[in-house]
Amino acid sequence: MRWEVLKSELVYRARIFDVRRDRSRAVSTGNEHDFHVLEIRDWVNVVPITSSGEVVLVRQFRHGIQDLTLEVPAGVVDPEDSSPEVAARRELREETGYEAATLQPLGAVYPNPAIMNNRCFVFVARPAELSGPPQWDGTEEIAVETVPLAQIPELIRIGAISNALTLVAFQLLQLKSVE
Amino acid sequence: MRWEVLKSELVYRARIFDVRRDRSRAVSTGNEHDFHVLEIRDWVNVVPITSSGEVVLVRQFRHGIQDLTLEVPAGVVDPEDSSPEVAARRELREETGYEAATLQPLGAVYPNPAIMNNRCFVFVARPAELSGPPQWDGTEEIAVETVPLAQIPELIRIGAISNALTLVAFQLLQLKSVE
Repeated sequence: MRWEVLKSELVYRARIFDVRRDRSRAVSTGNEHDFHVLEIRDWVNVVPITSSGEVVLVRQFRHGIQDLTLEVPAGVVDPEDSSPEVAARRELREETGYEAATLQPLGAVYPNPAIMNNRCFVFVARPAELSGPPQWDGTEEIAVETVPLAQIPELIRIGAISNALTLVAFQLLQLKSVE
Repeated sequence: MRWEVLKSELVYRARIFDVRRDRSRAVSTGNEHDFHVLEIRDWVNVVPITSSGEVVLVRQFRHGIQDLTLEVPAGVVDPEDSSPEVAARRELREETGYEAATLQPLGAVYPNPAIMNNRCFVFVARPAELSGPPQWDGTEEIAVETVPLAQIPELIRIGAISNALTLVAFQLLQLKSVE
């Protein structure tokens, strides 16, 4: 079922991803076809939980859907981040002003293995404590909201939380909790 | 926290998505910035469950990660599909050869609200029954595998199922089941 890449060409460079076009050949049939792939740095999602069982969430404008979403803190693993955990701590602090003694890895998923080459690493941060003001980048404007962890399934059910990767973060948290 | 789009430009057209560059302005500050958005048709994911409690999964090569994945049947809502449910029935039949009497909607999520404009609609199909051979498109080669539904959490935990949207499909199924 595998394909081998015969030729790759960078066809568009955006700030946050590159678009690559591969000419690939099916090993079984020899058929050739073009496939587009987004080259993107890995992402991190972190579920911050306070000592009183509240989850720290961020509400912000998302340009893909031109609307506000409610999500867990998340971002890109920058070249200067020495690990996904370092990136998760940084994003948590920058977006919310919270820090946590312990970040526990919950696993990693492929956001979109068909057209993206990256992974998303998921962490739970406990106990999340406010340590200072957030440090947003030039385009960020974020409302920080805390919600009891027990309310998350209902927020997902009614569509108030609708970012697939935020759903996955809570799913992996639950799977780890029942281990 | 909202931004208004001042100008949009289509900067790259791939077979399965278009890349758009928006010049946008923050309503609160007046700051302007460029944002890239992928324009993609909506997707469907369907969890097919047989009368004996087996989930019908597909294993296939994914060009984004250059590797095989194990996923629920899924695909694009084509222009000729009159609804996401119609697309889900079609993808189920084309990819696996299975059909189902009932498709129940489990909800919809944004695969990536930061950079994509589309939604993914999730269904559970019961009872899934083999009705004929699959009908793959020119580049598809798919192995159909059945797995007891009870084994899914363990397959997610060990990373054997790692596509974020497949994880979400099982999460929404579980949330609906406990309603």
